[in-house]
Amino acid sequence: MALRIALLGAGRIGKVHARAIADDPDAELACVADPVPEAADALARAFGCPVSDVDSIEIASDIDAVAICTPTDTHADLIECFARAGKAIFCEKPIDLSLERVRQCLTVVGKTGATLMIGFNRRFDPNFAAAKKAIDEGEVGDIEMMQVTSRDPAAPPASYIASSGGIFRDMTIHDFDMARFILGEEPVSVYATASAITDPQIGELGDHDSVSAILMTASGKHCTISNSRRATYGYDQRLEVLGAAGSVSVENQRPVSIEVATATGYTKPPLHDFFMTRYRDAYAAEIAAFVKAVNSGTPPSPNGHDGLVALAIAEAALKSVTEQRPVAMSEILG
Amino acid sequence: MALRIALLGAGRIGKVHARAIADDPDAELACVADPVPEAADALARAFGCPVSDVDSIEIASDIDAVAICTPTDTHADLIECFARAGKAIFCEKPIDLSLERVRQCLTVVGKTGATLMIGFNRRFDPNFAAAKKAIDEGEVGDIEMMQVTSRDPAAPPASYIASSGGIFRDMTIHDFDMARFILGEEPVSVYATASAITDPQIGELGDHDSVSAILMTASGKHCTISNSRRATYGYDQRLEVLGAAGSVSVENQRPVSIEVATATGYTKPPLHDFFMTRYRDAYAAEIAAFVKAVNSGTPPSPNGHDGLVALAIAEAALKSVTEQRPVAMSEILG
Amino acid sequence: MALRIALLGAGRIGKVHARAIADDPDAELACVADPVPEAADALARAFGCPVSDVDSIEIASDIDAVAICTPTDTHADLIECFARAGKAIFCEKPIDLSLERVRQCLTVVGKTGATLMIGFNRRFDPNFAAAKKAIDEGEVGDIEMMQVTSRDPAAPPASYIASSGGIFRDMTIHDFDMARFILGEEPVSVYATASAITDPQIGELGDHDSVSAILMTASGKHCTISNSRRATYGYDQRLEVLGAAGSVSVENQRPVSIEVATATGYTKPPLHDFFMTRYRDAYAAEIAAFVKAVNSGTPPSPNGHDGLVALAIAEAALKSVTEQRPVAMSEILG
Amino acid sequence: MALRIALLGAGRIGKVHARAIADDPDAELACVADPVPEAADALARAFGCPVSDVDSIEIASDIDAVAICTPTDTHADLIECFARAGKAIFCEKPIDLSLERVRQCLTVVGKTGATLMIGFNRRFDPNFAAAKKAIDEGEVGDIEMMQVTSRDPAAPPASYIASSGGIFRDMTIHDFDMARFILGEEPVSVYATASAITDPQIGELGDHDSVSAILMTASGKHCTISNSRRATYGYDQRLEVLGAAGSVSVENQRPVSIEVATATGYTKPPLHDFFMTRYRDAYAAEIAAFVKAVNSGTPPSPNGHDGLVALAIAEAALKSVTEQRPVAMSEILG
Repeated sequence: MALRIALLGAGRIGKVHARAIADDPDAELACVADPVPEAADALARAFGCPVSDVDSIEIASDIDAVAICTPTDTHADLIECFARAGKAIFCEKPIDLSLERVRQCLTVVGKTGATLMIGFNRRFDPNFAAAKKAIDEGEVGDIEMMQVTSRDPAAPPASYIASSGGIFRDMTIHDFDMARFILGEEPVSVYATASAITDPQIGELGDHDSVSAILMTASGKHCTISNSRRATYGYDQRLEVLGAAGSVSVENQRPVSIEVATATGYTKPPLHDFFMTRYRDAYAAEIAAFVKAVNSGTPPSPNGHDGLVALAIAEAALKSVTEQRPVAMSEILG
Repeated sequence: MALRIALLGAGRIGKVHARAIADDPDAELACVADPVPEAADALARAFGCPVSDVDSIEIASDIDAVAICTPTDTHADLIECFARAGKAIFCEKPIDLSLERVRQCLTVVGKTGATLMIGFNRRFDPNFAAAKKAIDEGEVGDIEMMQVTSRDPAAPPASYIASSGGIFRDMTIHDFDMARFILGEEPVSVYATASAITDPQIGELGDHDSVSAILMTASGKHCTISNSRRATYGYDQRLEVLGAAGSVSVENQRPVSIEVATATGYTKPPLHDFFMTRYRDAYAAEIAAFVKAVNSGTPPSPNGHDGLVALAIAEAALKSVTEQRPVAMSEILG
Repeated sequence: MALRIALLGAGRIGKVHARAIADDPDAELACVADPVPEAADALARAFGCPVSDVDSIEIASDIDAVAICTPTDTHADLIECFARAGKAIFCEKPIDLSLERVRQCLTVVGKTGATLMIGFNRRFDPNFAAAKKAIDEGEVGDIEMMQVTSRDPAAPPASYIASSGGIFRDMTIHDFDMARFILGEEPVSVYATASAITDPQIGELGDHDSVSAILMTASGKHCTISNSRRATYGYDQRLEVLGAAGSVSVENQRPVSIEVATATGYTKPPLHDFFMTRYRDAYAAEIAAFVKAVNSGTPPSPNGHDGLVALAIAEAALKSVTEQRPVAMSEILG
Repeated sequence: MALRIALLGAGRIGKVHARAIADDPDAELACVADPVPEAADALARAFGCPVSDVDSIEIASDIDAVAICTPTDTHADLIECFARAGKAIFCEKPIDLSLERVRQCLTVVGKTGATLMIGFNRRFDPNFAAAKKAIDEGEVGDIEMMQVTSRDPAAPPASYIASSGGIFRDMTIHDFDMARFILGEEPVSVYATASAITDPQIGELGDHDSVSAILMTASGKHCTISNSRRATYGYDQRLEVLGAAGSVSVENQRPVSIEVATATGYTKPPLHDFFMTRYRDAYAAEIAAFVKAVNSGTPPSPNGHDGLVALAIAEAALKSVTEQRPVAMSEILG
């Protein structure tokens, strides 16, 4: 029996997950809900499913799971609601911008025993997943250092930035999760620097656009992270891991692999200019992993705790920038 | 209104086109037909469409087009049948293994005025298409030379080879079409060499597994082609074009872009091992182009003539190997 | 007239500079001096020049310049000696392990008006130099972030490490100089983390083998550095610079550019395993720059001040590790 | 004792070999001879050796070997002269443009028992040599197909072309030698096509600028060659070999390895624009191989026979173009 999933939120990322659910032979897009009726209708038409609403989904006995693709400030409430309703839950990151609210939410999830998976899509990218597999199979030996380079083609609009929780909670959080995914050991200290140098408006909003960070683990493993809101050449997403026996690196993805050579040199086209085309396969694999976990009754990964810790690292990084000192994770997590 | 397409042939390539049709917002998979009921049923279930048969499709007023994915020896008959029935036709290459039969078939198509597109999928690969676009935009100047490297991971089974029409009609035909697509000028002479060196069984079947060819145009442009039925490192599909102002090359596609560096060197995983994963995007773009052409009433490309000429070049190449001399295209096409 | 240069120190790096001097049409290897007579003799024979000693060179009227390739603890004394003797001086980095001693030495150089160039060879590598040129020509716009990856194939012997001054003064100092060379703005704060994870013996010697660092400038530019004493795949030397208009990166150099593809993947040979083969062209260009500066009477670069500041950054980094906090450069430089 | 070598011809390629001889610790540049006194003087001054002449060198008891870098039409006479004089001979390719004259010359060499090495420098390029080594060590299994791509940045002057013997004897001959070097089996048939499309003047001189060729061996191995006199992006020198177990390829060399990424894409600088910088290391290794062979009394490679066969293939290729048919090597070699 296919897993019947209700989609909450018919926006940009909602459409991506709708397509992934529709294409997964083990899942079925049961219905879609969105406070904007036109958005819900359009998506429902495109995928041939009915429109519904949160209250109806909550009590619908033929809905097995929900995919939460609504604005961040609704995530925690919806997770609690559907945890209590006994639905399996896939929720886009972050659970909430407040660590305290995340803790409360996860307490509810824990008490209800609900299945919760958090959408750190990059873990499911075939390239990052292949690097993780190579590491797990010992190809590079014990990990010693890793570097994450993560840059957006261009900054989001000011309105988005204003409600984003800042670059660490919005953007670097993906890299913090990648660090935990790869290192196999929790970071114990975080040092970060940040500046607003690509666009003065970002600084005026109290946010940053350029970030460097060093995470250290108890055994002395290093993770450096480099973020920018602007990379003119496209969506720059790379990873490099050094181990005792060698290194593994994930190179950038390109929309097309052609090269033109002329008197001025050899030129390849820019990278993807949008995270949805860059991570197309990752989103499909992510939903497939959720469906498989629920259908087989195994705990999904990344889970609520992963969502909590990534946010805690973001908190530590922000504190590090503010106080200009390394911050111990124990200061944040207790 | 979405174009309603009947799928003929529920085999491997049929499934690929079914997926492409189902995902195209401007098309609809109307029904599927296959002499093997289990195959038709399975595909129909997977895509939620009814099973039908050739006779019913021929007279169905709510079927706009057919996608012919049946064995080669049925192509010409089916094309004629549906041309007379007034359906738009997408047919996998080749139209037939006999040039004479192809000519007859195209005469019928011409008389009926039917829309016919032939499935040379590589033209629709985003990479080859991007190279073609760069050439058309003059980035490399007038074309002087091109090289096609095209190698399969492993030879098909002997049973397939026995009925394939030989490597030129089965495999090199794609490269002959690519030559015409890129050169912008018809080849006037063909010289080819061929040997059976990867597997003696292929030689015993009277076929070859390794092919080199040179095509020349009237103005002196060169195209060299290199084929092998065996490349241990995967499905090797490259193109390189030299023009007066530079060159453009299409590099191989990889399933994942990771690199592991150890004391023995830097290693990237092998290429795709299957043409269907390598050309996933090409198949989708191909069907989209067919749908768009039919819906807009513009002639599709590649058409029946393209199918005929590619086969004629294959004929010339085979004659060249047999008679150990360059063969003029005029000897074949008259 | 060719510049007549006396070579001090006939060891490994001395031989490299001897070859560079001998091959430079505008320079002449006047003589060689080394406390180990066999070493001096061997080098003198190989290059067809006489053996001499420091005292004789000091007073020789036909010696224009000296190239100091002796152990680090002799550098400052020799620089002062030859500054007073009116010779132009090329000295391998570092001037001394003590910042105080470097200051004294530079005071002497300043008073005598001597010409002093410090051997930060990487600035002269054709690849790093080409990146610098691209930046200076505005190809990537104003610089925002840079990343230096610098890893040795294997740690030096314990005896070397014991007298090296530690990884920051011995190894990272090159990257600190590269940061200054590229950023075009002085770092104002340094944060570094360090661990001994590749070899416990290095930790027992009180040194580290794995280093991460973040340098920040007053205007908010970032430089991250990643060092390791062990990279099984060879001598890993990369640079990546992000600017407002794009990025420029320097890729690793390989002894040979072949690629073997088999069923297990595509493999390229490891990198150079020795800094002298990796930087062969850099050493030649470095001496050529010294010769050109002296012959034309223009100040050489990098100069004594560059040597001082790079060492000061190393000092700051070490202090940062010890005190687990970012260190302001003003704390070190006053 | 160092091998004392007299250099004949102080032109462009003579200077390259002079530098290689001077830098080889086992060789010594004994003297230089050139009919143009200024050329001989300049080279002699630069390398600190005396000027001499052919007659004196012939009878000089302290000259062990000669390096012939004079115009092609003097090669055969000089080889015969120094073979009779008992000198070891290194001679630039080709021995002569006439196959008959080459045969006569080699008869003299054979009778005198002289040591003769022919300057097919590409065999000594570290990259091509590494590919050959990988093949010899069985990394790619038995060879089945190879492709040589060889393109000059720009055509030589008309005066050079007029006396070059045509593109096959002047340029493709290097690729014919590479085919023999790599295949490990003699070609038995040659088919070539050629056109003058980059520059009409080349056609007016009766020569071609664009060449494709297929060489076949008795066992069915293929070699395809692609030549052009014009590649705007630089000196394009590549090789690709397919074997039963995989492939090995030699990639192009670049003067610098930087990459600039901007909104228009990722750009690497053009290739070398000159064969002497591209093959700098090859020339040094070539002379070292000659010196080593002579000093150790082992037969050098490539030898006179290699020079003869490469020229014979060029002859066959030209005949193939003229007669528009494949030519058997037995037609040329008897």
